[in-house]
Amino acid sequence: MRPKIYLFGDSITEESFDDGGWGSSLAHHFSRSVDVVLRGYSGYNTRWALKVVEKVFPPETEEGSGGGGAAPVAVTVFFGANDACLPDRCSKFQHVPIDEYKNNLFSIVSFLKNRWPGTNIILITPPPIDEDGRLLHPFVENTLGLPERTNEAAGAYAKACVSVAGECGIPVVDLWTKMQQFPDWQKAYLRDGLHLNQSGNKIVFEEVIGKLKEVGLSLETLPIDLPLIAEIDPNDPLKEKYLANWI
Amino acid sequence: MRPKIYLFGDSITEESFDDGGWGSSLAHHFSRSVDVVLRGYSGYNTRWALKVVEKVFPPETEEGSGGGGAAPVAVTVFFGANDACLPDRCSKFQHVPIDEYKNNLFSIVSFLKNRWPGTNIILITPPPIDEDGRLLHPFVENTLGLPERTNEAAGAYAKACVSVAGECGIPVVDLWTKMQQFPDWQKAYLRDGLHLNQSGNKIVFEEVIGKLKEVGLSLETLPIDLPLIAEIDPNDPLKEKYLANWI
Repeated sequence: MRPKIYLFGDSITEESFDDGGWGSSLAHHFSRSVDVVLRGYSGYNTRWALKVVEKVFPPETEEGSGGGGAAPVAVTVFFGANDACLPDRCSKFQHVPIDEYKNNLFSIVSFLKNRWPGTNIILITPPPIDEDGRLLHPFVENTLGLPERTNEAAGAYAKACVSVAGECGIPVVDLWTKMQQFPDWQKAYLRDGLHLNQSGNKIVFEEVIGKLKEVGLSLETLPIDLPLIAEIDPNDPLKEKYLANWI
Repeated sequence: MRPKIYLFGDSITEESFDDGGWGSSLAHHFSRSVDVVLRGYSGYNTRWALKVVEKVFPPETEEGSGGGGAAPVAVTVFFGANDACLPDRCSKFQHVPIDEYKNNLFSIVSFLKNRWPGTNIILITPPPIDEDGRLLHPFVENTLGLPERTNEAAGAYAKACVSVAGECGIPVVDLWTKMQQFPDWQKAYLRDGLHLNQSGNKIVFEEVIGKLKEVGLSLETLPIDLPLIAEIDPNDPLKEKYLANWI
């Protein structure tokens, strides 16, 4: 059985298998060693994520259903962009107060640790927000003329996410900070002020690969599923040694 | 548990999660309904595929390992491009005689039918070959100055694949024929005379989606994993009805 990595998050996770997406890049990178499993739920905040987490990650052995399978080697938890919607703007129904956001993240992490004690959990903060981009690409009717998300609010939630990771002793990708280190991040990495374009996806991919490496999960350490073509003896492709080693 | 679709094949499957690949496009298309699981093995022919098929698809219940999980809703079987290497050219160690190719495909299909009687198996023929492209992009040293694959040979194997599908009563994507219906298919769909570029990947994606639809697997028929954001009542996101329906 190949090891699995689950990607749990909101729309930035759900759309991560689109062309050049960070999810498909992970699946491609680990094409012979890991199954990358998509569990992205557009629009969800941590309140809803916590409500459904047991459904998303069912117990390992459910008779007849195949169950949830073996423990994954890693889970990325990538929420906060929706929690950080402002409570008095057009997407207010997605807003979650920051203290509840922190508690919800704690609860999600502890659910996962409880379910799979050996699994690496990696938090990812919400990305920075380009407020002009949000005004140009509203998801719902916006009569106020004010963005439903601000970069300042996203930053506060990102900071909260980093602090939860610190308290839990788990890795975190601080995407909010990372992206803003680059000039023109507003247009260089975001396509509508919130969601990632291909360059933005590339950053998430590289950051996640980096964190996975830090916890010992990389192409160098993970077993390859079946022999590479280069290892097959062209003169005797099915020879005993090959079979004994691999089958 | 989400249903699964396995992609079983050679390098054209293994690299299908690269940017714009047909595998990642499937995963994106079914992002809330199906897990698309990659089982591509570069360079493999049906002889090696048949040797390892039990390892690729382990029995459903292996105590302790999580087993192979529930039966997938579909498996794509996409081999032949390596079998069709000519027996007297530089990639001859990958060559499999056409009668053996047919028998191996039969055996792979019957293994899968035996393992999972309800699973839809979809065969995909090898793509056409652009011989000029192969001479420009050799995978191994080619001192003969002749391509290791020809379009004519690929066509014979494609025909054999179509005939196996007919005899087994299962769907087949005749990629060899389909691609050649378009002008300039040699450069329009192939990047090295054999492997697919993004446009070629798009054809495979669309053909597979079409075959899946024919056997009743589509966005319209497959259940969505958890409620879409549009179905959540903004005034009462966690109301009883929502919970009762979904959790």
